[in-house]
Order: sequence, then C-alpha cells, then structure tokens
Amino acid sequence: MNKKDSNSNQCALQSDQYDTITLAHGGGGKLTHQLIENVFQKHFSNQLLNMLHDGAIIQSQYERLAFSTDSYVVHPLKFPGGDIGSLAVNGTLNDLAMCGAKPVALSASFIIEEGMSLDELEEYVRSMKKSADADSVQIVTGDTKVVPRGKADRLFITTTGIGGIPKERNISPENIALGDAVILSGTIGDHGMAIMSVREGLEFELEISSDTASLCSLVETMFSVSQAIHVLRDPTRGGVASTLNELAESSQKGILIYECNIPVQSVTRAACEIFGFDPLYVANEGKLIAVVKSSEAEKILSAMKNHPLGKNAQIIGEVVDRHCKRVVMKTTIGGERVVDMISGEQLPRIC
Amino acid sequence: MNKKDSNSNQCALQSDQYDTITLAHGGGGKLTHQLIENVFQKHFSNQLLNMLHDGAIIQSQYERLAFSTDSYVVHPLKFPGGDIGSLAVNGTLNDLAMCGAKPVALSASFIIEEGMSLDELEEYVRSMKKSADADSVQIVTGDTKVVPRGKADRLFITTTGIGGIPKERNISPENIALGDAVILSGTIGDHGMAIMSVREGLEFELEISSDTASLCSLVETMFSVSQAIHVLRDPTRGGVASTLNELAESSQKGILIYECNIPVQSVTRAACEIFGFDPLYVANEGKLIAVVKSSEAEKILSAMKNHPLGKNAQIIGEVVDRHCKRVVMKTTIGGERVVDMISGEQLPRIC
Repeated sequence: MNKKDSNSNQCALQSDQYDTITLAHGGGGKLTHQLIENVFQKHFSNQLLNMLHDGAIIQSQYERLAFSTDSYVVHPLKFPGGDIGSLAVNGTLNDLAMCGAKPVALSASFIIEEGMSLDELEEYVRSMKKSADADSVQIVTGDTKVVPRGKADRLFITTTGIGGIPKERNISPENIALGDAVILSGTIGDHGMAIMSVREGLEFELEISSDTASLCSLVETMFSVSQAIHVLRDPTRGGVASTLNELAESSQKGILIYECNIPVQSVTRAACEIFGFDPLYVANEGKLIAVVKSSEAEKILSAMKNHPLGKNAQIIGEVVDRHCKRVVMKTTIGGERVVDMISGEQLPRIC
Repeated sequence: MNKKDSNSNQCALQSDQYDTITLAHGGGGKLTHQLIENVFQKHFSNQLLNMLHDGAIIQSQYERLAFSTDSYVVHPLKFPGGDIGSLAVNGTLNDLAMCGAKPVALSASFIIEEGMSLDELEEYVRSMKKSADADSVQIVTGDTKVVPRGKADRLFITTTGIGGIPKERNISPENIALGDAVILSGTIGDHGMAIMSVREGLEFELEISSDTASLCSLVETMFSVSQAIHVLRDPTRGGVASTLNELAESSQKGILIYECNIPVQSVTRAACEIFGFDPLYVANEGKLIAVVKSSEAEKILSAMKNHPLGKNAQIIGEVVDRHCKRVVMKTTIGGERVVDMISGEQLPRIC
C-alpha cells in the first residue's frame, strides 16, 4: 500500500481498512480490484488469472471437451469434512471425471451478501485452492457480485470446469448392456447426514463427516486397468436411488441392486433413522457409481479398493432385462422392492 | 403426462399443478427432472443438453480456448431493452468476443428463490435461448438450485462460456503500443441509466433502453478487415473509465481521450445529470473498446460503422507516452483532467 498517497479520501477506502464485504466491493472499481488482488489472486494466483481480464485463454490438445457447471448454495457454509469452497471445487471436478475427462481449467463466480467477513471469505477461497491443487488444476477466471443484506444468504459459489477426454474413452448411457455390473465406490449418505446433523445440532458419538472429495484420481486409476467402463455417475442430490433411476431411464434397461452389498456407515445409518431418511436418497459428494462390463468388473473393483477413495467399493448390482426402466432392490430379508425416484426435496441446500 | 397413473400421490406432484417454484424443484428428484424437461429442455433443447447429464461433451478444433464466467444479479429482472436472461447470455458471449474468440458453448446455472413463478422463469429462459440463437451458440449444460424464501432475491443466473480463438488472432494488453488508436463502438451509459430509471420509477420523454447485445458479430466484422486489433474490452461495471484505467495499468502506458468524441445519447446524459452520475463510469452491456494500430484505425472504424452495433463508433483517444498508467481526458472546454478509477459502487446490481 502506498502510505504516502496524498489523497486522504482514497486512503480511507483502502481495503485493509475493511474487514467485511461492502456493496462497493462488487462495483467494478478500486475496491473490486483490491478484493481480487488481496483475496482471489493471493490464493488462486496463476499466470492466466493474473491478467485481470474477464476471460482466460487456455491451451488444449483435446478434441473432445467435457464442460460442466454447478452452483453451490450449501447451508451451513462450513460442516465436518469440508466447506462451500472444497465442495464447489470437488463437485465440478467430479462432474468432469464422470465424463471420463481430465480437468483442464476451472472458473469460479461468487455472489456475496454485503456484510460477510473478508476473513471468512478468504477461508473458503483457501479451501478452493487446496482442493484444486490436489488435482493440479487451476482456477483461471472468475467473477464477484455483491448484493445488499437480505438479498442472498451470505455466499453462493458457481464453479464451471473444462476437462479433456482422452481419445480411447467412451462414456455414455447408450453403452449400458445387459449383464453389466454396477459398482459403488464406498459408503453412502455421509454428506447429506453430515450437513443435517450440523443443522439440527445433533451430536453422535462419532462425528459424521462429509465425504466431499475429488474423484479424478480414482477415475484415472479405474481407466488405468480397463476401458470397459460404460458409465460413471456421482450420486449427489437425490442420492444413489435417483442416479440409478436416471441410468435405468436413459438406457431403457432394468437395474437390480442388492441391499446387503450397499455400504452404509453405522453412524450415518443411525442418523438416517433418527431423521427418517432412506440412505439411498441421501446426497454423496465423493462417491461414484460405475456401470462396467461384467467380465472386467472384478479387475476394476480390485483397482478401486487399492485407492483411498475406493477402499469400501462394492459391486452392488447388475443390469437386467426385467424391470425395464426401473430400479429394483433385493432386500436383506429376501424380498424385492421398486426403488423409485423421489418426488420432492429431502434435504434442501445440501450442496 | 400419464393420466392413468394409479398412484394419486404422484399425480398430485406432477408439475403442471405447480405454477411456482418449490424447494422440491431443486431436490434432484422427479420435480427437478420435470423442471428441466418442461422449462429448460423445452427451450434450450439440443443434442448435448438432452443427455440430462451433469456435464456436456463438446467437440473443439481450437488449440486456444477462451473461458469466461459471470454471475448476474441484476435488479429488476426485466428492464427496457432486455432482462436477466438476455443479459446473462450476451454478457458472457461478450467476454469471449473480447478474447477474440468465437463462441463454442455456454453453460447456465440458476439459483432460484422459492415462490418464483414458473411462467416468469420460462420467460427468461426463452430470452436466453433467443440471445444464444442470434450467435448460433447452444446452452449445453446447466444446474438449478432452489433456496428458501428470503435467501436469494428471486433469480440469479451464472453463465460460463467456452470460445475458440482463431490462430491468427492475438489479443493482449502487452500488444498495446504508443500511438495506438482507442475506438469506442457507440454511445455510453445506456445500460446503467436504463436500470436506474426503472428502479427510481423515473420517466423521460424518450425511454432509455439498455444496450444489452452480443458483440460477437461486430468483432468478427472488425477482424475481417484487420488483424491489427491489440486489445478488446467491454466497458461493463465501472464503465469506460474503469476499463481504460485497467488498460493503462496493464500496458504501463498513458491513455489520452477526447471528451468531445465520446458519444452519449441526450436522454442518457439527462438521466446522468438528474442522478448525479458521470457517464464515463456508468455500465454498458453492448459496447466495446478496441485498441488498434493507428494506421489501421480508420479501416476498422469504417467496418464498424457499417455494422448495426457500431454505427456510432468513434476514435476516442490514443495511447501516449505521457501520463504513464493514467487516463487523461481533454475536456470540451480545452482542459485536461485525470479520469481515475472509481473507488466504490455507483450502481449496485446493474448486471
């Protein structure tokens, strides 16, 4: 800062005198620039972002690009296992990974409610940087808007990602074939129940931690042993049940799953029982479902189990010619029940 | 709709019975799917989006990609000349155009306040589609979040764009050279004053209409006559003054502009006087500033004047060796004054 600045009005507006976000931080003037420099560039700093331009120019050698966007409105902003920052980066990286893509670049756009503390904002920005670094991807462009008090709930972040898809990969529901195995990468319901427990102030003997994580390296591990991966999906909002229903619908086939093979942590199961939720419908933020050629399933599963994010992976079902466009579960007591898509909202603002 | 559906609970939840957005529309279940199908797919419909997947796969033959994102929180959502939908598409297309890129694909992410009318939402979606169609670009992926009443102000839209940059183009502040001409594509301050007039309920004899427009075709027209375009910028938040200051700062040169050459509509000037604004600082949403090689300036200007969006284009200034990193204006009465970057917020939520 230039302490010799003779213009005292300008001095009074220097951002080190602000500890909360004001409307002027979103005005496109000096305070916007200071916010970008002191918070966003400080952490995201990279050659592309430093151009302070509205758009970034990136190099890509890929012919097929994956492109995905998500807005994050999670409440509360911090929760066991993560925060809105890690969630926003991991979530979009996962959408790219589910296309079979390797991340190329991310953008981040912030809608901030006037009055938010700059320190808290910086904490989420730091968290975004840490998550992006874990996959060696950069946040190359962004935007900041500030709205008056009461016009947003503190902070919303929208991240968008570009990924490159290696030539040999072909991920599409059209590839789903009868007999394909359905693999789930780990325990379900942890993210939704972590959020719910914080919101309701409920304490369990063991804390339920969100599973928020980037699945990029797990996906690379899977492709390193087999190309016979037909579809990848991350069961976020709506949970495993909704994701499987989408796959049954788009492939025009039936999916049969086995309840006893679906891993659920006991603390998550307990929370679900207290709140009256079925874990099949609860959001995950670091799990994937893969539909793979049955003859390759064990090989892929075994590779997954050697990865930290896949150690609880299980083959949970198969693609069948009965139950067209439906998901049916063989229950632990031997019956069969249709697993429908939920109609409404179980848990608002879980991501 | 399957009117024979025997499950009356499900019938009651079918979306034609909803005329406003509920939290369940953001839950990832049936209502989210119905919202996507009945509103987003209905208008944006294209092969990529129809996959109902979280990410789209796009083909690109470009080695250099432009990547840009912006959140739109404009208030009110509708204004003379446009609405949040057209603004969100045009704004991001313009960020791509300012990189010298041709649009490849757009994404759109919606944060909707519970209680918003579905008809009104559909109106903005229709408006997005119309703006995207004008440049033959598709909205290929998106996201929808719903937050409870009071947690957002009706509707925020974040759009992100990917563009391809033709090999021969090279847009960068580093290219700015002494003697370069500064071209402005038309009248300034119209968008900001259109929004302000609606907000304040002020009526002028002539309505002030936002200039929201995609600059992609104007930029293509310019490149069709010359490659000596060093920098392109759209003077949005912070107006022409802030954009020129950014260019002076990043090029480490001075910029001298001539007040008498800067076109301002008389109705916009009148509104600025009433509200106490300097048009140089008021946002534009369909104007560009080009810094070009001086010997090519007249040729480029002449091409611009033949385009509907450039008919009022003017050479407004030049790059000089005095006034390093500053913008100086020769006023109509012959004096010189420094045009500083604004510190604060003139007009909150103008985009």
